[in-house]
Amino acid sequence: MADKANPIRFGILGCATIARKVSRAIALAPNATVVAVGSRSLDKAQRFIADNGLPPATRAHGSYEAVLDDPAVDAVYVPLPTSLHVRWVVAAAEHGKHVLLEKPTALCAADLDRIQEACRSRGLQFMDSTMWMHHPRTAQMRKFLLDPNRFGQLKAIHSSFTFCVDPDFLQNDIRVKPDLDALGALGDVGWYCIRSILWAADYELPKAAIAHHGCVKNQAGIILSCGATLVWDDGKDASFHCSFLSNLTNELCVMGTRGTLHLSDFVIPLEETLAKFRFATDSGFKELQTGWHPLPSEHVISTDLPQEALMIQEFARLAGSIRDSGCKPDEKWHTITRKTQLVLDAVKESIEKGFEPVNVTG
Amino acid sequence: MADKANPIRFGILGCATIARKVSRAIALAPNATVVAVGSRSLDKAQRFIADNGLPPATRAHGSYEAVLDDPAVDAVYVPLPTSLHVRWVVAAAEHGKHVLLEKPTALCAADLDRIQEACRSRGLQFMDSTMWMHHPRTAQMRKFLLDPNRFGQLKAIHSSFTFCVDPDFLQNDIRVKPDLDALGALGDVGWYCIRSILWAADYELPKAAIAHHGCVKNQAGIILSCGATLVWDDGKDASFHCSFLSNLTNELCVMGTRGTLHLSDFVIPLEETLAKFRFATDSGFKELQTGWHPLPSEHVISTDLPQEALMIQEFARLAGSIRDSGCKPDEKWHTITRKTQLVLDAVKESIEKGFEPVNVTG
Repeated sequence: MADKANPIRFGILGCATIARKVSRAIALAPNATVVAVGSRSLDKAQRFIADNGLPPATRAHGSYEAVLDDPAVDAVYVPLPTSLHVRWVVAAAEHGKHVLLEKPTALCAADLDRIQEACRSRGLQFMDSTMWMHHPRTAQMRKFLLDPNRFGQLKAIHSSFTFCVDPDFLQNDIRVKPDLDALGALGDVGWYCIRSILWAADYELPKAAIAHHGCVKNQAGIILSCGATLVWDDGKDASFHCSFLSNLTNELCVMGTRGTLHLSDFVIPLEETLAKFRFATDSGFKELQTGWHPLPSEHVISTDLPQEALMIQEFARLAGSIRDSGCKPDEKWHTITRKTQLVLDAVKESIEKGFEPVNVTG
Repeated sequence: MADKANPIRFGILGCATIARKVSRAIALAPNATVVAVGSRSLDKAQRFIADNGLPPATRAHGSYEAVLDDPAVDAVYVPLPTSLHVRWVVAAAEHGKHVLLEKPTALCAADLDRIQEACRSRGLQFMDSTMWMHHPRTAQMRKFLLDPNRFGQLKAIHSSFTFCVDPDFLQNDIRVKPDLDALGALGDVGWYCIRSILWAADYELPKAAIAHHGCVKNQAGIILSCGATLVWDDGKDASFHCSFLSNLTNELCVMGTRGTLHLSDFVIPLEETLAKFRFATDSGFKELQTGWHPLPSEHVISTDLPQEALMIQEFARLAGSIRDSGCKPDEKWHTITRKTQLVLDAVKESIEKGFEPVNVTG
């Protein structure tokens, strides 16, 4: 079992901004440590180690290959541009490394299949880096949604994630470049919307995705803002909106026959050590509709470790049980990632087809 | 000027449940009073007067005509089923009565045009009964949206209004009957969503409406749940979801380049004497995305009179200035109602055309 004395030893592939956050998370997790950082520039890797207070023994490598060749590395965290995921995750798996992969995981499900097959065939743990899944708030909200007396039957979901980028981002960020993160806002923020919808639907795949008119693209054809409706056979539906063009907004509303879940910070809680959600059951209006009765209730969940450290802890627990106890990988993470990618692919295809419905098949 | 000594004297056409709330609002307003109630049954009108504590002098009439013939009636409040609006509002106008009309105002814009023309040609005040428009919170939120330093440029809106009806409603309520309120959930709750979107867009009409797949109808073809996307030429867009099938939920989120407005009770505030909204400007994440900075702020607006009484007060002020000072009607209310109806019509047509885009033309 991975623990402080015998941690899962991470190698980080690339010095992306998000890698700073994950480095801290690895340091905070009780069963993981960073042992190597690789960049195309040795200098950059060295600076990353120094700037982020990584253990002095952390090895800087001047290439990603060198991290994979490092026998002390159990697992890699891969925050590279999406277009590089297939190449480097497959290589990591060939070197026997477990893989924590930044989202969006792949440019399309076929690419993701290559990634997942590489991990699966070697008995390696795969997980995507969707941090909010690991916050204790998420588990608590799940309990509410699963309780028929609180929530009833799921009917509708709406999710929004937007943030407003500056002119430099619109010109230069990898997320607006066709050769790097070709999925644009759909891949970067829409990923979370789609995941939240699948989460709320307990991972039941929708039948079809229909992108909303009003999609905004840059001159290179990269999505800057879009939305979609997802429909299921049983009549429930969901919609989402994701954008690089509106002020940071992060809404999730899940509606059942008897209950409503709402939160305004589902991806990153407003505060690190506590997170809230609002839940209402059997809501109605007072006599003469002069107010609501009952009122929605607010629930506060505190956490000692931030959600990203809890993610690392869970990943390291799974990787450690494989490394030290011969267990098999937890397939759940393969499945959840793949469903997210399938829906994302369908939304993208719907946009390309002029907002026609596209079946989600997996 | 209408005041306590010289109030606008209301006649109420029909004893619908909502008329109980509006009767109380008329009693609360400082410049209005109820003088007559008409029903197809005299007995029902008498009981309504007694049950709702209306002034003892209130006259009960056994027909709607009798209310219109009552010379002491300045204005009528019309909560009749939508299919009866043209007939009774035109008749009321022909009798020189100002008109406060329950929503949805008409089955289609052509019908609304007949209603509005009847009022306009006789110099009578027209207003639809969309109460939240009159809450001081609404004016306060408008100030925030108009402030470029708080909100920037409008980019996206999402609005949801749902409530979960019981089996009796699904069988018997007028809102599921083709001959009474044929617009179903779109007319009853979607009206508010569309109005909130138009309000947020400062009443700029969208270019087109595209209904969302996943619309649910009853066997008679009445909409029980639906949604739509609205698009504007400048790239902003909006979506809404309205339904009779989910727990009472009432969300409005308005996203600009610099700000986000959010509230969860836009149609009827949770509490009668105070109402809240959340606003965030230039939101971002802290270093390493460990939380948000700045945090959204919560704003609390108190009101002595409930929003429905403020609506009556404003309507009576306008009707009084016509009656007593020879002023002209406030055309604003014609315009806002008509735009709401135009969008509603386009959404309905889009549903009928299999979710094709329908231009909004007025």
